[in-house]
Amino acid sequence: MLIGAGNVAANLGIALSKSGIKFFQVYSRTVESAVRLAEKLRCDPVTQLSKISKNADLYIIALADDIVAEAAGKLNLENKMVVHTSGTVSMDVLMKTSSNFGVLYPLQTFSKHREIDFSDVPLCIEASSADNLQKLKNFAKSISNNVKEMGSEQRKVLHLAAVFACNFPNFMYAVADEILKDNKLGFELLRPLILETAMKVQQMKPTEAQTGPAFRRDSKTIGKHIEMLKKYPEWQRIYEIMSKGIQEMD
Amino acid sequence: MLIGAGNVAANLGIALSKSGIKFFQVYSRTVESAVRLAEKLRCDPVTQLSKISKNADLYIIALADDIVAEAAGKLNLENKMVVHTSGTVSMDVLMKTSSNFGVLYPLQTFSKHREIDFSDVPLCIEASSADNLQKLKNFAKSISNNVKEMGSEQRKVLHLAAVFACNFPNFMYAVADEILKDNKLGFELLRPLILETAMKVQQMKPTEAQTGPAFRRDSKTIGKHIEMLKKYPEWQRIYEIMSKGIQEMD
Repeated sequence: MLIGAGNVAANLGIALSKSGIKFFQVYSRTVESAVRLAEKLRCDPVTQLSKISKNADLYIIALADDIVAEAAGKLNLENKMVVHTSGTVSMDVLMKTSSNFGVLYPLQTFSKHREIDFSDVPLCIEASSADNLQKLKNFAKSISNNVKEMGSEQRKVLHLAAVFACNFPNFMYAVADEILKDNKLGFELLRPLILETAMKVQQMKPTEAQTGPAFRRDSKTIGKHIEMLKKYPEWQRIYEIMSKGIQEMD
Repeated sequence: MLIGAGNVAANLGIALSKSGIKFFQVYSRTVESAVRLAEKLRCDPVTQLSKISKNADLYIIALADDIVAEAAGKLNLENKMVVHTSGTVSMDVLMKTSSNFGVLYPLQTFSKHREIDFSDVPLCIEASSADNLQKLKNFAKSISNNVKEMGSEQRKVLHLAAVFACNFPNFMYAVADEILKDNKLGFELLRPLILETAMKVQQMKPTEAQTGPAFRRDSKTIGKHIEMLKKYPEWQRIYEIMSKGIQEMD
């Protein structure tokens, strides 16, 4: 049973479905989302939490972080196994939902129009008992070779690190795109560079991979860049603080 | 003739050599660097600018940005074609070096221990005459399918954008690594996420690919993250300024 039909729910549902897992229902507040994902998973859509079947083996709550606790509070699944998929929400919010509960947090960035291969996605799991942990581990292994046991506190740290590793680099790409656009240059010029930057740290540590004017302490280039950014005071501040950080880490 | 033996010189030299280009000499101030790269390119090492042969067809100055102008000033190559490979240095610093000059700027991040496939690396070219531009274009096409004509001003903008697209994301990876290390978690957990973040923008625009608490305006999670970073005031500032930037761009 899948509760949620957003990017995480859709990607996880499709991966599980491909590995042979059968879904009874998909829940979403919005009819269109429920129907769309239910079609892909060949199961029934539901749009009310009260209509959720009690017959599933596992309930996966894959909702936005800030509504997981609220939805969990409205569900009573007795002794059925229930997990949420959030990086930031404690396992304990599920304590009143069922006597068997846990977390299955996929550490990945999910978007529409891109299907994720789960085989190397870290699935961070936690459960309310050793038995439940073992069951959840077996389940997670059906789609990923990278299953990690981890407590709620470590999971929250990992989620924070993921913001630095994913959301902030993507914002830096967006700033680069804006700078190019303002000068009639296309973003496609940067694509091989962006990919290689990510490829490098697949083998080496980021500190070993660092390059650029700040790393070389090339103050002449840094000065020119800051001057070039005078139209964009916010990005100028980012440039300064990042360059300082690179020099301090070196 | 290759003047320089650093990461750019080595990667460019190897790619050119593989495409069938013959080198006479490699220059580096340090004997070891000159010898090491000269062996790979099957040519002679030189460690003095005055010993550089006058018999090559093309001279490539691939030195650190801040010493290109100085080295160019010490060379007199008459009418031989000379180019530098810097993103930040104007073409005109070569005006006194020869009557035929230009720029060949490979937009990529180069490190030791990683050989770059140049076939899709943007090679940004500029030259002192239409004839020289055509020659340089033919030469650049021997290693890359992505040759772009670009003036010095646009090249400098591109270099600035590249700092945002490469150096700053890599620093963000380094901060993520530190956060994990402090909590006894390994960097390898983030590798699939980092790669997927870069893969996404190979197809879509960064603004379409943005995810995370700031993008969702999840102020509860943002607040928790800022609290978790209280041990690291610099990274806390980075978190705040990046989150603000993401919300303003949205």
